[in-house]
Amino acid sequence: MSGRVYLIGAGPGDPQLMTLKAARALGLADVVLVDALVNRGCLAYARSDARIVEVGKRAGVGTSQAFIEKVMIQSARNGHTVARLKGGDPFVFGRGGEELQALLAADLEVEVIPGITAGIGVPAMLGIPLTHRGLAHGVTFVTGHGAEVDWQALVRSGTTLVIYMGLQKLESIKASLHAAGMDPRTPACVVENGTLSTQRQLVTTLGRLSDAGFSGPALIIVGAVVGLSKQAAQPKAKAA
Amino acid sequence: MSGRVYLIGAGPGDPQLMTLKAARALGLADVVLVDALVNRGCLAYARSDARIVEVGKRAGVGTSQAFIEKVMIQSARNGHTVARLKGGDPFVFGRGGEELQALLAADLEVEVIPGITAGIGVPAMLGIPLTHRGLAHGVTFVTGHGAEVDWQALVRSGTTLVIYMGLQKLESIKASLHAAGMDPRTPACVVENGTLSTQRQLVTTLGRLSDAGFSGPALIIVGAVVGLSKQAAQPKAKAA
Repeated sequence: MSGRVYLIGAGPGDPQLMTLKAARALGLADVVLVDALVNRGCLAYARSDARIVEVGKRAGVGTSQAFIEKVMIQSARNGHTVARLKGGDPFVFGRGGEELQALLAADLEVEVIPGITAGIGVPAMLGIPLTHRGLAHGVTFVTGHGAEVDWQALVRSGTTLVIYMGLQKLESIKASLHAAGMDPRTPACVVENGTLSTQRQLVTTLGRLSDAGFSGPALIIVGAVVGLSKQAAQPKAKAA
Repeated sequence: MSGRVYLIGAGPGDPQLMTLKAARALGLADVVLVDALVNRGCLAYARSDARIVEVGKRAGVGTSQAFIEKVMIQSARNGHTVARLKGGDPFVFGRGGEELQALLAADLEVEVIPGITAGIGVPAMLGIPLTHRGLAHGVTFVTGHGAEVDWQALVRSGTTLVIYMGLQKLESIKASLHAAGMDPRTPACVVENGTLSTQRQLVTTLGRLSDAGFSGPALIIVGAVVGLSKQAAQPKAKAA
């Protein structure tokens, strides 16, 4: 009899931002496959005798998707309970859809446990409401590395823009948003290592946004709501 | 000395989808202000001697925002630890930004604890990835009750559309999306009471979307990714 596979969102960084359900499922697993971007503190909820498989991938380089799927399928077919721990939410820029399809095609029992995606968890740390009466009536999550983003439509939508993995393309994103008619005085920020003690951020305007000094995984947020940022809202700000 | 206020996202329904941090903060609170849409199971994590204040509001009717803010501020000034428990995430259609501003203006110490918003938690139950290579490179969350949504821009953006509180305006939303050029054969679904045992859904196409038989809080998801829906992905589907 095959074991169940849990496709788990580990949240944005801080292990305490995992869900109760995620922590419980981790504690059931015989085998845990964990992404490079997942904070190692999350593994404290795994059993001490669980087999931990690092399937790290940064900027597309690392363990192949085929290998990850093969290990999950073989482990489950051997009767093991498998936890696949992914950064953020499995279904928001996480390739969780592909992994779910592979697991279902192998006729396995799969449970998806959602997680706090960085686009939700990181603004909370800065006191930035993604929607706010009179400022933003919606929010859009996109990636900065793809060529398929229609920046003009996004600017016209009037939603808060949350851009994942955009640091390497920051200048091109700024140029696209300018060209689409966005005011360079629009509030904007870059946040690196959000929710962790190593979090660093630049809260400024679109025109003054810069990648200088950032190197880790970063989130870019653009929109009037960024102007409401209150860093005093978070405990780690007390040290400042 | 004033008590701290926790602005907490309770998640989409299932209490197990609260974060570890939210559960811990709830357990510290002397006073808990809870919204009508929050599942009462979440209160199991509050202290048995905590004062529970129901500040329910459905469709805008109920306790006034001014009253909610007054209770939070007075309780904190009296030295009490206050937990403000909101459905989903406080900063996604939750008026959390307004409450945070009021609390900071009262010079109180506030900690925001993000939650799984329905737009993330509910698709996970149906095995719908919000982004997926070749199908959707982004996702937009909007409300269906506002007049300010630019449906044309949203359709042009090519992102998966997640529409909160849209059931009452379903026909008008369908008409707007058609007028904006969206194919009526685009996969779409309505999900009521998502993540709870009372969850019900209609997974169909935009053209066949209907509010018939739904009455509870519902989420509408529109986009090619809805076509990947696998209800078998969730435990409660096993009863079917």
